[in-house]
Amino acid sequence: MADFVRSYMQRTAKSKKLYSRSTKVFPGGISHNIRYYEPYPFFVESAKGKKLTDVDGNSYTDYWMGHWALILGHSPKPVADALLSQAKSGTLYGTVNGPSVELAELIQKLMPRADMMRFSTTGSEATMYAVRLARAKTGRRVIAKAIGGWHGFNTTLMQTVNYPFEFEEGPGLVQDEGQYVESIPFNNLEASLKVLETIRDDLACVIIEPVLGGAGCITPSDGYLQGLQEFCKKNGSLFILDEIVTGFRLSIHGAASIYKLEPDLFTLGKIAGGGLPIGVVCGDKEIMSLADPVSRTGKEARCAIGGGTFSANPLTMAAGLATLNFLRSNPGVYSKINRLGESVRRGLAKIFAESQVPCEVTGTGSIFMPHFGRNEVHDANDVATSNKAALNKYHLSLMAEHEIFFLPGKMGAMSYAHDETDVKKLLAATEKICQSGILK
Amino acid sequence: MADFVRSYMQRTAKSKKLYSRSTKVFPGGISHNIRYYEPYPFFVESAKGKKLTDVDGNSYTDYWMGHWALILGHSPKPVADALLSQAKSGTLYGTVNGPSVELAELIQKLMPRADMMRFSTTGSEATMYAVRLARAKTGRRVIAKAIGGWHGFNTTLMQTVNYPFEFEEGPGLVQDEGQYVESIPFNNLEASLKVLETIRDDLACVIIEPVLGGAGCITPSDGYLQGLQEFCKKNGSLFILDEIVTGFRLSIHGAASIYKLEPDLFTLGKIAGGGLPIGVVCGDKEIMSLADPVSRTGKEARCAIGGGTFSANPLTMAAGLATLNFLRSNPGVYSKINRLGESVRRGLAKIFAESQVPCEVTGTGSIFMPHFGRNEVHDANDVATSNKAALNKYHLSLMAEHEIFFLPGKMGAMSYAHDETDVKKLLAATEKICQSGILK
Repeated sequence: MADFVRSYMQRTAKSKKLYSRSTKVFPGGISHNIRYYEPYPFFVESAKGKKLTDVDGNSYTDYWMGHWALILGHSPKPVADALLSQAKSGTLYGTVNGPSVELAELIQKLMPRADMMRFSTTGSEATMYAVRLARAKTGRRVIAKAIGGWHGFNTTLMQTVNYPFEFEEGPGLVQDEGQYVESIPFNNLEASLKVLETIRDDLACVIIEPVLGGAGCITPSDGYLQGLQEFCKKNGSLFILDEIVTGFRLSIHGAASIYKLEPDLFTLGKIAGGGLPIGVVCGDKEIMSLADPVSRTGKEARCAIGGGTFSANPLTMAAGLATLNFLRSNPGVYSKINRLGESVRRGLAKIFAESQVPCEVTGTGSIFMPHFGRNEVHDANDVATSNKAALNKYHLSLMAEHEIFFLPGKMGAMSYAHDETDVKKLLAATEKICQSGILK
Repeated sequence: MADFVRSYMQRTAKSKKLYSRSTKVFPGGISHNIRYYEPYPFFVESAKGKKLTDVDGNSYTDYWMGHWALILGHSPKPVADALLSQAKSGTLYGTVNGPSVELAELIQKLMPRADMMRFSTTGSEATMYAVRLARAKTGRRVIAKAIGGWHGFNTTLMQTVNYPFEFEEGPGLVQDEGQYVESIPFNNLEASLKVLETIRDDLACVIIEPVLGGAGCITPSDGYLQGLQEFCKKNGSLFILDEIVTGFRLSIHGAASIYKLEPDLFTLGKIAGGGLPIGVVCGDKEIMSLADPVSRTGKEARCAIGGGTFSANPLTMAAGLATLNFLRSNPGVYSKINRLGESVRRGLAKIFAESQVPCEVTGTGSIFMPHFGRNEVHDANDVATSNKAALNKYHLSLMAEHEIFFLPGKMGAMSYAHDETDVKKLLAATEKICQSGILK
């Protein structure tokens, strides 16, 4: 057993017991596959600012930040205050309410292409509704997505998600239901267009993350996303940008503003709800109106997209409004987290180079991720075939010996609660880990 | 314009303005189709106990209760206290945590068939995962559901939901993807078995609500659910009970205990999260283990069901624990709400009979619903072809002139915050409305 694993186990005795209980109620002891890691995950007791504290009293600087949703850190004061006030006067009205209109108007103001929107409760729902709207609008069936692209667990888009990408995503998904999804190689415009060309007559939409998140923090090469968009426009297919991770993270106006894109539809989640459950499908008024139950009373005329019991619930609305209003009045948030992100990417790359640990550090703005054994990373395949074992060792070692938390194997994100001292600590820890030789 | 519509509009001037703003951001002004009603919905400002207060200061006794999720009423003290404490120390850990284990252990204790479970964020996700697990377990493709059965907005189960049931649920759903769903007529065992018989070799599961909720509060006739279950057992198909509405509402042990059913899998939601976003798929250990990412590391061996960013978040866990612990230590909740439900069903039936308004009142326990123009209600078709216009008039009139809120056209639910005086008021209001003659 490696030293850092022993060290982790010594520090996390209560978590070990809790994990053992957890395996008796949840398959694998988790409610989200990526939350398991070896030897067992630690159990969080509380979270505040940049810190996670576990049940054994260990405190970690958190770079996972609630699946990257917590741009202001854990329980930031404006959000906590809004929740404290709302919790006493209703958590689920089950009806229309003013704060949902305010939040939507704010999103409309901040995101240039959000003519209209629908709130759902999760991102998996929002992407499912986006492609349903695209099929309704175009009368076509085929959806194109990126290899490794992650749009949640909905049946339609649960394809080519995990390596090896050419194989199906496991039992329970019916091939006949998946026949209308085609996958394209991220960052290879020529090859992507070739695929799209073969399905052009029946192509309802391309749905794509501007930066591949779950697949490993892969930024788009110049012209790639624009090339896809151009093909879509010419072909009468919708271009859908999945901004569930990047929306309000890379910029308050979304990745669309950074990469100068004009998606027909786009999806939001995570930050939009201030860390509380939300999904949003937004975009062109005419397309969104296909879901209007008032003007389209017969079901044959209406695209049946949902909201769900918890849609527009006042707790999420309160947290989302508090977060977006804070971001809007404090543009310094983005300059700070982007600066920290840049420092950490440069610092890590320098340390790995000096330590002769082959590693490409990808990312943009406040998100970043190292890829061991790689000099270049262009697509999900590059990430999947990198030295994942080294990445897991690196992350677990940070956790066990340096009180720094990344979800093992996943990209990290800066929040407004982080500062320069955190970057220094992360770099110093990385240097030590490199010196220990475990990454070679 | 009817008097009650004029009266409603006079009392809701601010809501009217807000609704007008809302139509500029949301298609139809809503984020859930059923939340629109004519002339426009009122906007909730706050909710406490049994009361909803709108932005114009009107206060309504609420029988919609957050899509029937709020069994203890709006913001009950134990739940509000739990949320107040949790909001300050983390809203989204994004990792495993003790309260999620506690909530799961409590569900395991209360629900006899919950060997293992997975938490998701919505009911739509939970039912989608349940049928995916059934397909993985059986290696078969076909899913049977009830005509009018409501299992959320996921693509797979979004079929035969709205009248006329034989037509597709609108543009955007691809027929080729829906070919593996068959629908059966609720409460007609012979006809249902006949359908199942034709697809028996490829039948993965039957998924069914024990009491049809969205379709109109339709209770099962003796032997119907048992007959379906028996067919499934014999046929090697899974029997899945969708208890998102009924779980913890009809009994703390679920409708399964009332109707003496032994589902292979079942789903929970709503009450299980104390009114905060949750979905749960639970059941047989061996089936649930198909989703275990620890023992099934390769994707070809694992049924890919999700959790999602917000799964097992500590706010939902806190609200769910507070609610279920309260229900467990106060069995009087069920005797009270069931008694109120029974009183209102009897009282309404008597009034409609005496007023010679043909109307069947359905329901069980704390849920109830009138069906105008009907003497008997057995299935979704009976509800869909009842006098819906009368029901809408009845509900809007209650809202406009008696400060009583039902979501127009939907079933009502008692909460622990209601009492006998509410029943009296509802019955007195109903009597007046009958006398006015608008229901004839």
